[in-house]
Amino acid sequence: MALKARVLYDFHSENPGEISIREHELVTLFTEEELEGWLEGENSRGETGLFPASYVEIIREHISTNNNSFSLPIAKSLSPTQSQRGFGAGSGGGSFHTSQGSDDDWDDDWDDSSQASDAPQGLGSAPPLYPVTTSLPGRCGNAQQHQQQAKSSGTVGRNLNRFSTFVKSGGEAFLLGEASACVRDKDRICVVMGKHGPEWQEDLHPFMCTIDDPTKQTKFKGMKSYMSYGLTPTHTNVQVNRRYKHFDWLYARLVERFPVISVPHLPEKQATGRFEEDFISKRRKGLIWWMNHMTSHPVLARCDVFQHFLTCGANEKAWKQGKRKAERDELVGANFFLTISTPAVPLDLQEVESKVEGFKTFTKRMDENIVVMNTTINEFARKQMAGFKKEYQKVGQSFKLLSQAFEMDQQAYSVGLNKAITYTGEAYEAIGEYFAEQPRQDLDPISDLLDLYRGHLANFPDIIHVQKGALTKVKDCPKQEGELHKRCNIISCATLAEIQHFHRTRVRDFRSQMQHHLRQQIGFFQKITAKLEDALQRYDDDQ
Amino acid sequence: MALKARVLYDFHSENPGEISIREHELVTLFTEEELEGWLEGENSRGETGLFPASYVEIIREHISTNNNSFSLPIAKSLSPTQSQRGFGAGSGGGSFHTSQGSDDDWDDDWDDSSQASDAPQGLGSAPPLYPVTTSLPGRCGNAQQHQQQAKSSGTVGRNLNRFSTFVKSGGEAFLLGEASACVRDKDRICVVMGKHGPEWQEDLHPFMCTIDDPTKQTKFKGMKSYMSYGLTPTHTNVQVNRRYKHFDWLYARLVERFPVISVPHLPEKQATGRFEEDFISKRRKGLIWWMNHMTSHPVLARCDVFQHFLTCGANEKAWKQGKRKAERDELVGANFFLTISTPAVPLDLQEVESKVEGFKTFTKRMDENIVVMNTTINEFARKQMAGFKKEYQKVGQSFKLLSQAFEMDQQAYSVGLNKAITYTGEAYEAIGEYFAEQPRQDLDPISDLLDLYRGHLANFPDIIHVQKGALTKVKDCPKQEGELHKRCNIISCATLAEIQHFHRTRVRDFRSQMQHHLRQQIGFFQKITAKLEDALQRYDDDQ
Repeated sequence: MALKARVLYDFHSENPGEISIREHELVTLFTEEELEGWLEGENSRGETGLFPASYVEIIREHISTNNNSFSLPIAKSLSPTQSQRGFGAGSGGGSFHTSQGSDDDWDDDWDDSSQASDAPQGLGSAPPLYPVTTSLPGRCGNAQQHQQQAKSSGTVGRNLNRFSTFVKSGGEAFLLGEASACVRDKDRICVVMGKHGPEWQEDLHPFMCTIDDPTKQTKFKGMKSYMSYGLTPTHTNVQVNRRYKHFDWLYARLVERFPVISVPHLPEKQATGRFEEDFISKRRKGLIWWMNHMTSHPVLARCDVFQHFLTCGANEKAWKQGKRKAERDELVGANFFLTISTPAVPLDLQEVESKVEGFKTFTKRMDENIVVMNTTINEFARKQMAGFKKEYQKVGQSFKLLSQAFEMDQQAYSVGLNKAITYTGEAYEAIGEYFAEQPRQDLDPISDLLDLYRGHLANFPDIIHVQKGALTKVKDCPKQEGELHKRCNIISCATLAEIQHFHRTRVRDFRSQMQHHLRQQIGFFQKITAKLEDALQRYDDDQ
Repeated sequence: MALKARVLYDFHSENPGEISIREHELVTLFTEEELEGWLEGENSRGETGLFPASYVEIIREHISTNNNSFSLPIAKSLSPTQSQRGFGAGSGGGSFHTSQGSDDDWDDDWDDSSQASDAPQGLGSAPPLYPVTTSLPGRCGNAQQHQQQAKSSGTVGRNLNRFSTFVKSGGEAFLLGEASACVRDKDRICVVMGKHGPEWQEDLHPFMCTIDDPTKQTKFKGMKSYMSYGLTPTHTNVQVNRRYKHFDWLYARLVERFPVISVPHLPEKQATGRFEEDFISKRRKGLIWWMNHMTSHPVLARCDVFQHFLTCGANEKAWKQGKRKAERDELVGANFFLTISTPAVPLDLQEVESKVEGFKTFTKRMDENIVVMNTTINEFARKQMAGFKKEYQKVGQSFKLLSQAFEMDQQAYSVGLNKAITYTGEAYEAIGEYFAEQPRQDLDPISDLLDLYRGHLANFPDIIHVQKGALTKVKDCPKQEGELHKRCNIISCATLAEIQHFHRTRVRDFRSQMQHHLRQQIGFFQKITAKLEDALQRYDDDQ
């Protein structure tokens, strides 16, 4: 039986070898295998050739289909049940709902009573021009998955499809002048010319937000339980309570809202093989990092949906109003670009291309090297917690054995020595413990930082693709230069501003983390030295 | 064919189950296996029973025999050729010559021209009443052999033969009044009553002796080469040159001269699998330890043969005179006890027995525990030189990888950070080197100390046996109480004085070695801290 696919969106062939396909049309696939995001097949008019894989949905029987080739790695990570429920509840537009996938160690209800009323007001009621993707590569911050992906591709540039992200993000629609929405002043996002090129206008009222230890909450008379985090933003100083699923919902909004902004990945949904307490502590640390990156991003920090998330109190009605408003936000995808104000002088597109190309090389290298670094650091932590500890404790025990033998010597004058040796043995045992405890202080934070940056690095190929797509379009249509150039300049300014923000944050984060690490290590070795000095003193006692 | 043995010395049965045997007699063995130093067999008069294994020589064809059961472990460590040469060159009296066994990395000539003239003046010309043993267990300071012995016996008390050592040392002969020699005043050794019991009278003119790095010497126009050590004792301040074989010769003299004194073992004859330079350095350190124990022993330090060794210059004739005098020394074995002056009040023999018993338990425990300690410490050194170094260097390299990636970021403002991270990487690599170099400073010396003490601990079972043998004899013959008691008191005083000296030296050595170790470790961790502080400063450069 020939493999069929249903066309989801019109596609007009632009190059030799491509074929045009129309929405609702059935096409025959020659093979299920994509070639850099393209499929080969025959349309209903008998033309054969290539078309974007993301524009069609392969028809399978009784198997949850995935209409977005790009989100496949994520869809695979969900169980069939989860995947089906995701699609069932959703609008059928894209794989968007995977970002609301269940969070197994929490209960998975989500505004249970309002589910029905929410449905017609979601994305489903207002079909987007292009499918919105929230399933960026590495979307699940799961470290193991990260590693698998890194293994199979060896690079962050997993999406080699020239157009799909450009199209899906709304970049193409915007460039072609198809975006249209009412942009209020308060929605306007300014790119200004800084010392190192375009940058996001700084937030005039920067704030931070603390995240308290989560508390266990129950509902339905204890039938269901979940963890609740207390968030206190500095600009309101009022605590609000949020669950992980709220973060997850917010993340999905941000991703559809800001096509060329690297939204920091949430910490992994579930850590396997860990005690719950460890997991909760790790997730909280991850959320703190996440929050830190959110509040320090000039665009993300001030956006409506994030402010609603940070400031809306226990009023259920107010929460739902804000939630619906965010879900109905018109300024998503293509329309996002309408909100951007650029510096007066347009950029030199060739220079932009070279900068973006340089950044691409940089991210590839950074990603490769932090993978190695993370492996090394985790291995080092493991060695300190096991091998180093064991070695120091064995030496300590052997000193204690020596003093135990010496205690049998019937020589009164050696009592002081025996005690000193026993103390030395205990000091070495303590030092063994110091080694075991240390990685938590100075290696785990580096590892957390690297995880967060792996997330950012996984976001950038898509961001770069939007910019590159725009640039290619401009080159391909020299006649429409004026408007196309202007819009391409907007996309380029936003992209470079985001790259600039990435570098700033990177330098800030790595400097402070390396300093933290070194200070911790210095304190650690000083603690050991003090312990040994203490032991040394015991030998003077009876001389 | 029944297994035969030739009787080397008369043995008079003293207890039921024992049989008497006579020199030159052939006895038939029921089994080759010894039972605590005894063999079972039939003598030429048809009597069957037990006799001391060390009194007979098992007859084998074409196999180098060993007439001293006690020295078996040592004899085994020599190749058949070495073993045969040892016996061939010797007087046939005992296994004494194994202590002059070849030292393979040196040439093995020994006063080549005088070998013939020496022979009739050695032990061979004046058959000793009892065979002198210098092949105490663990005589070869070889660590591996130590370990093997420790494994097979699990204790230092390898010699469970009630009498053999007592007899061989001359202790029995002395107790029975058979010792006789002219003792000059300067040969007299005083045991005085100290705070903690009998002790050797302190040396009124204590001295030390330095050992320089050995130099390579040649003779016979470069045909033969050997290493020569420059020794400079503080009481003459004149350097003399000695070879390892001279030390070895001296050691043999001391062992036959002082039956109840623990002569420190010489460092291992040959280390296998080591570079020559390492070996030479290790041997020198071993000789320094050895010298230190020699000069700090009140009796050994002032004895003639040691003084001859330390002070006789390049005058070949004077050297040989002193050498022959030492080899003809009458005050060896049984006669040694004639030189001892005891405190006026005789000891309570029951108290002595309890003290010696306590010391025996102590040495057993100390030996067991320092075996564990030595293994642990060597393993710890190995881990630091391999694993620890590797881990720190891998972390250093991963930091350098990070800065290499960062150097591709085109961001001028991150140059300072990149340099700081590179420097941190180098700091970690240096710390890896510190770890690899450290064991030589603070673990190797402990290991050397433990080796030296394992030697002493291996000496004590024999020393204790002499004292116990005397005590048993006194108990067995209550009628001869007077003289026997007096002589037993001399043996007991000497034994307790030696035990006391052991404890003093032990407390002194272990205290100073533990202090040295801790000071080194403190310095080591301070060096690491300084390196990290240096790295930390680099992050301030451009903030």
